[in-house]
Amino acid sequence: MILLKKVEGGITVPDGFKSAGIACGIKESNNRDLALILSENAAEVAAVFTGNQVKAAPVLLSQKRVKDNKCKAVIVNSGNANACTGEKGKINTEKMTEAVARKFNLPVEQVLVASTGIIGQQLPMDKIKKGIEKLKLEFSDNRIKNSDLEAAKAILTTDNQVKRAAYSFRLPVRKKEVKIGGMVKGSGMIHPDMATMLGFITTDIDIDKKLLQEALKKAADISFNRISVDGDQSTNDSVFLLAGKKALENKIIKKDQDYHTFLKVLKQLSQKLAQQIVKDGEGATKFINIHVIDARTESQAEKVAGAVANSNLVKTACFGSDPNWGRILAAIGNSRTEINPKQLYVKINGKKLYEDGVAVNVSRKGLKGLMEDKNIDIEISLKSGDNNIEFWTTDLSYDYVKINAEYHT
Amino acid sequence: MILLKKVEGGITVPDGFKSAGIACGIKESNNRDLALILSENAAEVAAVFTGNQVKAAPVLLSQKRVKDNKCKAVIVNSGNANACTGEKGKINTEKMTEAVARKFNLPVEQVLVASTGIIGQQLPMDKIKKGIEKLKLEFSDNRIKNSDLEAAKAILTTDNQVKRAAYSFRLPVRKKEVKIGGMVKGSGMIHPDMATMLGFITTDIDIDKKLLQEALKKAADISFNRISVDGDQSTNDSVFLLAGKKALENKIIKKDQDYHTFLKVLKQLSQKLAQQIVKDGEGATKFINIHVIDARTESQAEKVAGAVANSNLVKTACFGSDPNWGRILAAIGNSRTEINPKQLYVKINGKKLYEDGVAVNVSRKGLKGLMEDKNIDIEISLKSGDNNIEFWTTDLSYDYVKINAEYHT
Repeated sequence: MILLKKVEGGITVPDGFKSAGIACGIKESNNRDLALILSENAAEVAAVFTGNQVKAAPVLLSQKRVKDNKCKAVIVNSGNANACTGEKGKINTEKMTEAVARKFNLPVEQVLVASTGIIGQQLPMDKIKKGIEKLKLEFSDNRIKNSDLEAAKAILTTDNQVKRAAYSFRLPVRKKEVKIGGMVKGSGMIHPDMATMLGFITTDIDIDKKLLQEALKKAADISFNRISVDGDQSTNDSVFLLAGKKALENKIIKKDQDYHTFLKVLKQLSQKLAQQIVKDGEGATKFINIHVIDARTESQAEKVAGAVANSNLVKTACFGSDPNWGRILAAIGNSRTEINPKQLYVKINGKKLYEDGVAVNVSRKGLKGLMEDKNIDIEISLKSGDNNIEFWTTDLSYDYVKINAEYHT
Repeated sequence: MILLKKVEGGITVPDGFKSAGIACGIKESNNRDLALILSENAAEVAAVFTGNQVKAAPVLLSQKRVKDNKCKAVIVNSGNANACTGEKGKINTEKMTEAVARKFNLPVEQVLVASTGIIGQQLPMDKIKKGIEKLKLEFSDNRIKNSDLEAAKAILTTDNQVKRAAYSFRLPVRKKEVKIGGMVKGSGMIHPDMATMLGFITTDIDIDKKLLQEALKKAADISFNRISVDGDQSTNDSVFLLAGKKALENKIIKKDQDYHTFLKVLKQLSQKLAQQIVKDGEGATKFINIHVIDARTESQAEKVAGAVANSNLVKTACFGSDPNWGRILAAIGNSRTEINPKQLYVKINGKKLYEDGVAVNVSRKGLKGLMEDKNIDIEISLKSGDNNIEFWTTDLSYDYVKINAEYHT
């Protein structure tokens, strides 16, 4: 058992990280729109990126740099995705990192970049460059107590809530107290364009780059890849994980107990952050937890969960608090994996409604109020193996339509 | 060029078909809910069915019978899908066909069946049996002028409109005037459960069964399989095509010019019916025509069109009349086929908004009002081949959410 301590804050909880978040004028609202994360050491870095074939310029640049380099800084802007911006967009994203490298005296290849916001418009480079200058000023003094919160604010777009989490925990072999922290912005649809999910996680451990990448991939697969607000991947989705090496004298270089402890905590943090994204999903009135259990393989479970999570019929039924298991069953039947409808059950909030080809007789009274709660639990047993997963999604409400229809380009 | 004459009516336009539609009490509303199609001859029959792995009892029975049998009758009920009803549902669907066979003195294997409506409840067999008796009475007299319309009404659920079409045309080799007619019910979400699409097409030509099946498959692929209201396939989707042989003395047994003429008209009729379904989609305020052109393969074009048609972000943008090409591009990037974002363009209602990696500069004035019209045309050129397709869908409106959230089981 890992003794885990929840800590207030996010990315600056681990030793060796600083951050800032300011308004540089990209957003018309004058809200914060430029964030910087600095690492005292050249951190080991891992990252995962969008599967969308249309990738924004900052994604392409960071993807390239993260491969062979350590990381001293990540610069992030909100309000403009720098996507579908051609050659000029590519040059601009490079310029953003150059400005940071110059101001903080860093090797440019150790500066990563992420953007989120409107698609198809060029970045306002003057504002961003001036913003980066300003960041430096605020950063050099020591008033950085709230900088973590400010950075977490600066990466948001239409999110209603700041999303952060941090833990401290003890490595069992090295007997060291270490920390991990993160911030994300939501996949509630981004005004004005689309769902972008950005995530930044820091830790003060020291670990081999390959192990770090493997750990991030594993954690993302069961967290950020198991949430859905509307089933679309953005052009800009990115998650970065920086290991700043401040807490350990000897590096983790193999899959020892310390590695597994770190992996476990990383998974937990990632799930926590992912759930915050779903809860703040656009127009969300319900938090839907889909458990697919007893599946042949994890991949089968994921496909079934994804089909249910992305069904507009299931989502509207949840919004209407209607225990409509027929829609769930039809979604299961539409998933891209072979299932046997005569050998599965569906439970909603603990009540079995369908099993092995037929409805389970539940009285009207038994159904009434079954889904009134904000949290809806859908359990699907495929009765064909021992793989279990969880997947989180939201309902589809009037407000989802409103938010996404009423913006005019 | 085929000289095509639009004819008033639907399935009884071709010689040799009769139909009826009555209310037998399945629906609480007392609307019509039982339809029968009778063929004077034992018709050659073809059919296509849902790809959903959860198949309703009538689908499984019809699928089996259609293989090796001719068809004298199709019995259809609305108000209850007879899906997820286990062994009893299977027996009930057989009983429905037996009742028709008995009353009209037909071989039971020549009676097909389709159902649509609520999932998970057993059919009210007493009402249906009494209904079938009643059908006989209405059918034996000759007051069947409106029977076609009555049948078209009896297959509806939450559809707002009756959906029929019929043509007469001339076969070039046989020099004969022949007819084709059809009726469908919509894939606007079905109160209370889900989108079911049912289609029934009749023709008086005589044609080899294998050719008929091939023609229906081809026609369905570019019509009923290229529409989407919310991306879900129902447990009950079925399209039947009956060739009643009344108009021809010598059967079409090879792919001669008559076959190709028939195929062409069948495609046109199927597209006409499919478009009626989309236009009457639940909550639809817009009719969106997605053209994907210059694709490597037809399958690539279909995947791109499907991804755009099923994107909630694109659909809400259409509802809001917002020419948000960024969402279209992101949907294209998420389609399950390799595309090159640097080599494609997107046009909305004739105006090019994106090409080869960058936005096309269009003034705010040029964008204003671009999508106010009820009909929205999205053209996507993949610039990598010569395959072109059309795909039809609707927007996602408040009413869609309302209709699908406010029903309570």
